[in-house]
Amino acid sequence: MSRGLILFAHGARDPRWAEPFEAVAAQVRAARPGVAVRLAFLEFMAPDLASAGDELAAAGCTEVAVVPLFLGAGGHVRRDVPGLLQALAERHPGTRFTLQPAVGEAPEVVAAMAAAAARALGT
Amino acid sequence: MSRGLILFAHGARDPRWAEPFEAVAAQVRAARPGVAVRLAFLEFMAPDLASAGDELAAAGCTEVAVVPLFLGAGGHVRRDVPGLLQALAERHPGTRFTLQPAVGEAPEVVAAMAAAAARALGT
Repeated sequence: MSRGLILFAHGARDPRWAEPFEAVAAQVRAARPGVAVRLAFLEFMAPDLASAGDELAAAGCTEVAVVPLFLGAGGHVRRDVPGLLQALAERHPGTRFTLQPAVGEAPEVVAAMAAAAARALGT
Repeated sequence: MSRGLILFAHGARDPRWAEPFEAVAAQVRAARPGVAVRLAFLEFMAPDLASAGDELAAAGCTEVAVVPLFLGAGGHVRRDVPGLLQALAERHPGTRFTLQPAVGEAPEVVAAMAAAAARALGT
């Protein structure tokens, strides 16, 4: 079994916007060296989700987890992503694509946001 | 000096979308009991940033930190928030409003997102 991970972010016109997500991808790669990790975007930036999924399937991944790097699974995540994953599944019947919860719902991310906000208050 | 904190999130039509942000607010309140903490939204949900700022200033806060609960300071955060804070400063000359970096740029949040994404891969 060959595993892949797509970190799926919104995207923005300013390329610097992607820097924290590139840092997330780098940290995941360091923690999971056997996994093919790709950063993909809903709009404005490349690759999009379909291209990243095609790439990982072509590279031989049989399992691809899709993790929305969103705070809250808002409108476009809930509406758009399932359809994108369904299209990927149809194009690549040998690969299982699974949609994970948005990272903003993870307890460690909630705790980290609270810690960062408390830090903004100083001592 | 009386301090306040506004956690500023995007907002969504679905009220459940705010739950992780309410959890962040609860954790910050527990960590900083002397600080007045409010959750405010850019759209769809109440209070908005202006109302939350008015409320904290009326409650006597002399320092209010505004923390964008955004991953990356995207378009509306960079374009809209400074103007909103400027308007608040003009309405409340006795209160200093300071815009903090978006939480998505904080190292602990980046690390937490990477940990949550790696966890999605299982063992």
